Formats: sequence, C-alpha cells, structure tokens
Amino acid sequence: MEELPIGKAFTLIEPGPVVLVTTSDGRTDNVMTISWTMVLDFTAKFAITTGAWNHSYAALTKTKECVIAVPTVDLLDTVVGVGTCSGRDTDKFARFGLSRVTAQHVRAPLIAECLVNIECRVAEIIGHHDIVVLQGVAAHVDGGRKEKRLIHAVGDGTFVADGRRFDRREAMRSKLPGGV
Amino acid sequence: MEELPIGKAFTLIEPGPVVLVTTSDGRTDNVMTISWTMVLDFTAKFAITTGAWNHSYAALTKTKECVIAVPTVDLLDTVVGVGTCSGRDTDKFARFGLSRVTAQHVRAPLIAECLVNIECRVAEIIGHHDIVVLQGVAAHVDGGRKEKRLIHAVGDGTFVADGRRFDRREAMRSKLPGGV
Repeated sequence: MEELPIGKAFTLIEPGPVVLVTTSDGRTDNVMTISWTMVLDFTAKFAITTGAWNHSYAALTKTKECVIAVPTVDLLDTVVGVGTCSGRDTDKFARFGLSRVTAQHVRAPLIAECLVNIECRVAEIIGHHDIVVLQGVAAHVDGGRKEKRLIHAVGDGTFVADGRRFDRREAMRSKLPGGV
Repeated sequence: MEELPIGKAFTLIEPGPVVLVTTSDGRTDNVMTISWTMVLDFTAKFAITTGAWNHSYAALTKTKECVIAVPTVDLLDTVVGVGTCSGRDTDKFARFGLSRVTAQHVRAPLIAECLVNIECRVAEIIGHHDIVVLQGVAAHVDGGRKEKRLIHAVGDGTFVADGRRFDRREAMRSKLPGGV
C-alpha cells in the first residue's frame, strides 16, 4: 500500500460506501462492518454511528483509535460476514481470511485486502446520538488494485456497487478543496 | 407521491447518495445540495453536516425544519447547479425548474422531481462539529418513477451512479429491522 495524502481521504467516504472498522484492545484485534458514516470536513474528520451493541465499541472507546478500511465489491460477502457475526466469539480476521498490516500511528491494523485504509483517532464521542467523531491521521491506498468499485449498503439486505462515473470537475471547481 | 413508511426512509440515506435539502424561512424557500449525511437509527434519525457557510443554515436553525429530497441520476446537473450557486441571490427553484409540493408537517417544500422526500425536524445542532441531527417525521416516494439510480458524490468533482444490485437479504436477516 502507498501513502494517500490525508486531504484526499474524504473522497473515499463521501460517496457513502459500507466500510470495515478495525480496533485493537492490545490483546486481540477486531473488525466490524459500518454503513452509517459521514464526512465532517476536508481534513479527514469523519463521524460514524456505533455504540455498545458492537463488540468493537469497548476497544474503540478505551484506545480511542481505529482504522477505517474501505472494501470493494469483490469483498461483498466478507463485508456481510463480518457484519453478521461478533468478535465476542469469533476471530474475524482468521474466519474471513483478512490480512493484517501494521499501521503507522495506531495499534488497530490495516486490512491488506481493502482499497484504502484510514488511520483514525477518536476526537469525541457524542454518546446520546451514538456518534463517534474520528480524525484521520494517515491514509494508505492499494493503487495497483483493479477492482475499485465501492459497495453501498441499502439497509434492506441489498447492496449496490458503483456504476457509471460522471465528470463534473469543471462545474464543481469552486467547491473543491486544493489538491483534490 | 405516495406515502413511504417512515421506518423505510433510512434505506434511501444509508446508501450514501447526494441529496437536496429544502428550507423555508416563511418568506422564501431555498434548496441546497448536501453530500455529507448519515443514518443514526432506524426511526429515521439522520445527521447532516452543514453550517453558516450555507445560506439555508439560517432558515434551518430558525425554523428547525427541512426536507431531505433524494434525487436520481437524471437530476445530476441540477444537483451540481444547486450546489454551486447560493440562495442569497438566486431563486433556485425557478432557475433549475424544480416543482414545489406542500409538505404535511413542515413548511419546507417537497420537490416533485425527486424519488423520495423526507420531512424532518431538527432534533439537535452540534455546532462545534457542524452536525445537525434530524428526526424524520414523514416520507413520500414517487413509486412510478422509472429512473431510480441514486447519485454518489466522490468529492473530487466526479459523481458515481448506482450500478449493479446484489441481494444478500438471507444472510443479513438477523440485522434488519422489522418491516424493511
């Protein structure tokens, strides 16, 4: 994986893909599927919706670190599998054949099979809305990957892959941050 | 437009589409393009990222009401146009030929050309993160619409339409709320 400038990381979350979020409590690593995410600014600040119903939440709130790993459509059944079992009783990395890569700034692992990995620190937990605010600190991209279509969870058990892309860069220029 | 059960409204936001958000300050209506949104729960609670840099923000915070209108790919250039001019000096409904429909619970208008419209009340403004928490109170769907592909903003001036759909309802059944 190559470094992705952190100022470009939001372009992998803004399209609204389902993501994997890894954590580590120092003894065991875990990974969960999250489809409720949002960009908060161009510095790579994100919000995710999670809470104590996710086993990963304890490690996330204790360590205040995680990695957002962005999967592509070839990983759809891994995403579904990760999202329908629990780290309470399952080593999901082993079960789904996910390869851990050591991150630079956080103890939570990167996932080699994903298109992009964003190392994050917890900036704030807004507990009464189950919102966790994350600050991205580094990002990595697998530039050689052929399959780049992201997966969007609909919420009814179906998923939609990225389809046709439209270029509106000229019309959007006044709204784009520098370097993107 | 027909009524869409409010418990299904999240399935239009969870996939991460760019949306239009309408407001009304009692004298003039306005509409803005928002791509930073998130589902917060199945009752149709949502978060959006916005702030005083958007002209609509004043009406949103004063009236504590808005409508989230979900466009499809045939409206791409309307979405781009709405997002790159300001209600300060433009009647965007007139300029982009958007047809207003009276909502049931809020003064902000529905947009007839959109696939789904969700009437919302502001539940909380988390100003230091530019997060506005919205509670959906009613939703409407244009069931006869042929084009149903949503649009995902990448953030670099390109947009991606919905592509192939995958059915994983059986595998996801334990995670789906009732009625979806």
